[in-house]
Amino acid sequence: MALSEFEVIRRFFTHRAPGAVLGVGDDAAIVRARRGMDLVVSADMLVSGRHFFRGARPAQLGHKSLAVNLSDIAAMGAAPRWATLSIALPSVNARWLTDFMDGFMRLARRHRVDLVGGDTTRGPLSICVQIIGEAPAGTALRRDRARAGDDVWVSGVIGDAALALAALKGRIRLTAGERRQVEEKLHAPVPRVALGTALRGVARGTIDVSDGLIADLRHICERSRVSAAVRLDRIPVSATMRHYLERPVARAALLAGGDDYELCFTARRSQRDAVARIGRGLRIRLSRIGRIVSAGAQAAVTATDAGGKPVRLRRAGFDHFG
Amino acid sequence: MALSEFEVIRRFFTHRAPGAVLGVGDDAAIVRARRGMDLVVSADMLVSGRHFFRGARPAQLGHKSLAVNLSDIAAMGAAPRWATLSIALPSVNARWLTDFMDGFMRLARRHRVDLVGGDTTRGPLSICVQIIGEAPAGTALRRDRARAGDDVWVSGVIGDAALALAALKGRIRLTAGERRQVEEKLHAPVPRVALGTALRGVARGTIDVSDGLIADLRHICERSRVSAAVRLDRIPVSATMRHYLERPVARAALLAGGDDYELCFTARRSQRDAVARIGRGLRIRLSRIGRIVSAGAQAAVTATDAGGKPVRLRRAGFDHFG
Repeated sequence: MALSEFEVIRRFFTHRAPGAVLGVGDDAAIVRARRGMDLVVSADMLVSGRHFFRGARPAQLGHKSLAVNLSDIAAMGAAPRWATLSIALPSVNARWLTDFMDGFMRLARRHRVDLVGGDTTRGPLSICVQIIGEAPAGTALRRDRARAGDDVWVSGVIGDAALALAALKGRIRLTAGERRQVEEKLHAPVPRVALGTALRGVARGTIDVSDGLIADLRHICERSRVSAAVRLDRIPVSATMRHYLERPVARAALLAGGDDYELCFTARRSQRDAVARIGRGLRIRLSRIGRIVSAGAQAAVTATDAGGKPVRLRRAGFDHFG
Repeated sequence: MALSEFEVIRRFFTHRAPGAVLGVGDDAAIVRARRGMDLVVSADMLVSGRHFFRGARPAQLGHKSLAVNLSDIAAMGAAPRWATLSIALPSVNARWLTDFMDGFMRLARRHRVDLVGGDTTRGPLSICVQIIGEAPAGTALRRDRARAGDDVWVSGVIGDAALALAALKGRIRLTAGERRQVEEKLHAPVPRVALGTALRGVARGTIDVSDGLIADLRHICERSRVSAAVRLDRIPVSATMRHYLERPVARAALLAGGDDYELCFTARRSQRDAVARIGRGLRIRLSRIGRIVSAGAQAAVTATDAGGKPVRLRRAGFDHFG
């Protein structure tokens, strides 16, 4: 498999880019934003042994590399348009690359994202995706827009990806059926792109849950200079998570696990019906898990249990240098 | 140095972004293109041991990481606007990061590029920069615009960076003074941004010389479906390169070395005065090194010496999987 860099680009990384003026094959791609649109720009780097296991299935890895970026665009309420993919490969394995790009491009096409450029080189496996989305000027969702009195919402169920990781690491034993269910969330997260755009004008402080629910909600609080109070029993969980919820490892996965790629957002109380309608329309579970409680205070997230008793949260979350 | 990911981002990667609506600190940045502008998008990945030596000076590395991307934007005739920086670090070394970002941001500020986002994680040192530039709609320079009868031009001098690399690898012995001079081109390339924008409407097929002069000119030919004939004695060289030009290693550096980051472009014969004026205005040496000789043929680059005798070119160039 002695393919040159140029053959690799031609064979694996060159795809139709109907939404671009000029795609892969020049020094840079040329794209044109629609009139009146803001652009939303994000980049993520995935490194072997850190964000995925050595030997991870390439199609899942291709999917996930793009999914985590789509999730960032979703959290901004933008429509994803163009992506670049830079990848360092220990060697050129045509079968691996075919599967990887299959996972990547399948998700790209589903969201009409054009792969317009990137880079490929030899090196320890690492993947860097950069993505550009569009939102009508001034409408992008942001972390710094939460206000006192807002409800706190979260989409889907939380913690399954981290629970799957704990099981893979031998920290908790799940049945084969349970593993299959939670591993789906770890390996093939579904970015909430449609939800993000639907929430424009409705959501205020918004983030995607990638570092852990409490840590990410704290990011909203820090940027908005508010605090939040969460009812732990209201955090939506899968049947599997519910079954193990008394176990510390499961509880840590729920509150501080990463990789959920759900959206956490705040909205005015007056928007409860609007939020519910959006959830019904998209068939996405949207759960009200707490409130923004005070402005001006030090950004803090506090929690209570079903009986209203305060619960101590460890300052935890996924930290790449932790 | 137990800095968390968030502290690292705050301390080293958060900079003023006056040209952005929203910079570092959210799920994505928000930027706004000027009316009537096309966007030009490029990404490059630099991996330790492949694109730079272990132990490379961090400020030079920061400079070069951005410079190679600016060079791509220059080759499109665009003005660079926004960049993201994703970096995997074996460990957090505050001194190293300070110096790296110093080199990066100094070049960014010189070109009014805002660092608007990125990612940071632990892993083998690798650096991925993605950059977005603007050019008035339809004016971006492209590889596929060369036409038969065009002159072939190149900026600056060619081959010094590769000569420096050969010296560092012990393949050629240079004096200390010669090394200093050529290493400047290797470690601190000057992207031809002002030249790129000045060449809009004048240059046709355009590329930056990063894979090696002949290989890059061949890229123009392939994309434009033309061939090119080059006069080897017209390729501009430094005094150091001229001194060693009869040595095969120097000749390989000249024709097939990478990392020059000069611009190679074609232009109509009728534009010779315009090209010369641009070079004088910017004080950049612009040399006419050949011609586009035929359309429709298989893309080929042929060469002759000062006496007009054909010279055989090995099919060489910098190939990341070679």
